[in-house]
Amino acid sequence: MATYVLVHGAWHTGDLMAATAAPIRAAGHEVHTPTILGNGPGDDRRTGLSAAIKSIVDYIIGKNLKDIVLVGHSYGGMIITGVADRIGERVRRLVYWNAFVPNDGESLNAMVPPHYVDLFDQIAGASDDNSVVMPYPIWREAFMNDADAELAQSAYDQLNPHPYATFTDPIRLTTNPAEMQVGKSYINFTEDTALPQSLGWHPRLSEKLGLYRLVQAAGGHEVCFTDPEGLAKAIMTAGRD
Amino acid sequence: MATYVLVHGAWHTGDLMAATAAPIRAAGHEVHTPTILGNGPGDDRRTGLSAAIKSIVDYIIGKNLKDIVLVGHSYGGMIITGVADRIGERVRRLVYWNAFVPNDGESLNAMVPPHYVDLFDQIAGASDDNSVVMPYPIWREAFMNDADAELAQSAYDQLNPHPYATFTDPIRLTTNPAEMQVGKSYINFTEDTALPQSLGWHPRLSEKLGLYRLVQAAGGHEVCFTDPEGLAKAIMTAGRD
Amino acid sequence: MATYVLVHGAWHTGDLMAATAAPIRAAGHEVHTPTILGNGPGDDRRTGLSAAIKSIVDYIIGKNLKDIVLVGHSYGGMIITGVADRIGERVRRLVYWNAFVPNDGESLNAMVPPHYVDLFDQIAGASDDNSVVMPYPIWREAFMNDADAELAQSAYDQLNPHPYATFTDPIRLTTNPAEMQVGKSYINFTEDTALPQSLGWHPRLSEKLGLYRLVQAAGGHEVCFTDPEGLAKAIMTAGRD
Repeated sequence: MATYVLVHGAWHTGDLMAATAAPIRAAGHEVHTPTILGNGPGDDRRTGLSAAIKSIVDYIIGKNLKDIVLVGHSYGGMIITGVADRIGERVRRLVYWNAFVPNDGESLNAMVPPHYVDLFDQIAGASDDNSVVMPYPIWREAFMNDADAELAQSAYDQLNPHPYATFTDPIRLTTNPAEMQVGKSYINFTEDTALPQSLGWHPRLSEKLGLYRLVQAAGGHEVCFTDPEGLAKAIMTAGRD
Repeated sequence: MATYVLVHGAWHTGDLMAATAAPIRAAGHEVHTPTILGNGPGDDRRTGLSAAIKSIVDYIIGKNLKDIVLVGHSYGGMIITGVADRIGERVRRLVYWNAFVPNDGESLNAMVPPHYVDLFDQIAGASDDNSVVMPYPIWREAFMNDADAELAQSAYDQLNPHPYATFTDPIRLTTNPAEMQVGKSYINFTEDTALPQSLGWHPRLSEKLGLYRLVQAAGGHEVCFTDPEGLAKAIMTAGRD
Repeated sequence: MATYVLVHGAWHTGDLMAATAAPIRAAGHEVHTPTILGNGPGDDRRTGLSAAIKSIVDYIIGKNLKDIVLVGHSYGGMIITGVADRIGERVRRLVYWNAFVPNDGESLNAMVPPHYVDLFDQIAGASDDNSVVMPYPIWREAFMNDADAELAQSAYDQLNPHPYATFTDPIRLTTNPAEMQVGKSYINFTEDTALPQSLGWHPRLSEKLGLYRLVQAAGGHEVCFTDPEGLAKAIMTAGRD
């Protein structure tokens, strides 16, 4: 049995991974769902990318977790890449789930279409703490296209303002993902339009991993809400040896 | 419950949408399946694009339909775009189902690979009324790849010669689809090769909608024949709020 | 009922198609699973492409098979293209299953990304008979991504060293596939990463067929091991009239 650490995406918290963690635990695995610094209630929304990464490094070291399958969703791909670079000896396999795959020096925003960057710039600029909130129409149509209106709204109500510096800070890595000597998997949900599919997750970002295992299933960007059972299954297929 | 207007594709009539309309009605919705001018028995095959669009505008106004979910298949994407531009106040959401998405000044042929345009030019030129018929081998292999031979033939036998001017006329729009202030969805059947997938429906044409909701399912271009139940389900997922 | 000839891919033998042949036979068809010259036990690993093609031509003529549905997997696409060019009058339909589609003068290696060619060059150069073996990590992650570790290993144990000249020899054809006057189908398993999907099987290679029928299903490159029933179903959908 394996130890899974599920790292959520932007605007989320670890608690929102509970429905996904349950079937993985039921299959006999140990599952952790930490909240990244900057997304917790009361966290400083001026948190930057290196502090966000460090919070998950500290979580793993604090619990002395070893041989872990480290799963990252969306923005969480930035985090797990940084964690693997810092404490790779504790990582058995990296699993990117519709996630950003950065090389040294890249920010999340460098992988996002310009119209999203412009939108985020405006929203963060209008906030008093450099945070971004997701506009509901984008959330409903592009992130939760596979949900009904009620689920899209109830999920939206659980989001939190995201520390924008984690999108604009370049990541610092000693080793790029393609050269990392761990197992690597990419889970692609085929209706995910959080990035436009012409400039999408897979194969554009997945192939930055070098040799990796592809897992695909039907669903949008937020299967943690729309299909946590299907997501759990995909994670276990991606995470097994 | 919503009011759906299903606008068929080239060579089709509204009657061919009956099997798709039935499960949508069974779910409690009102469904209309008009035939576009130029495709009805006895219609003039020299009908142009603006007259074709006007025929659906007239249908909607004549029945005083409001707050409609307007669905267009293939060539029907030209029609629903034109209808939304003319009577947008009656449209709640546009649903493109493997459909053309034109901007002002574009014709359907402008979105089709050159070898199809050449073929259509030859067929229309050889007709006595500027109409095009679909050659059976293309229909069977590229449009009905998910059917057996019997279904491919029986569907083919129900097609009618299509008024070619509706492919060559540029559309006139005051507002392009990306700027239209209505809900927009795109349904992509993943085995559709009516357009070569290297120059395909999605994301090439879908992303001309700006913010939109993607729905995908398995099937070819003619799921109205091969899987009307699956199509109805996709339409309702695309059409809900 | 039809006569199917299933032509395996590199590193495989005809015996490895047995689980796929069984459900096709159960549906009433005749199925042959020859081994290509160069892949049989004791075959010379210096076999070139034209001798490999000739071995299947000889098999078909030797058994006097006519009106056949000729299916090729991966490297097997080189073989069935050559067979159709030589004895096309015996072929009813060509079915490419995640297979190479060569034009006259092209080698398999010409359709493969440079990093694979470099790897194969090194492996063949280090062998004493110009043969290539598949490195297990690539097999496990990129070819058998949809398998568990046990199945990936047991399948790997059945592979044989492949004659590398069949990858480097250009094929000689009098007619390119797009111009061949037979039915043509392409089966694409959507999680196949044996070729990187940015430079993948479909539509890059499938569209070299000209008019063809697309069939897709979920699975990786080695569904003959991971889902022989699903593969058999796809072959029959691709192979019917």
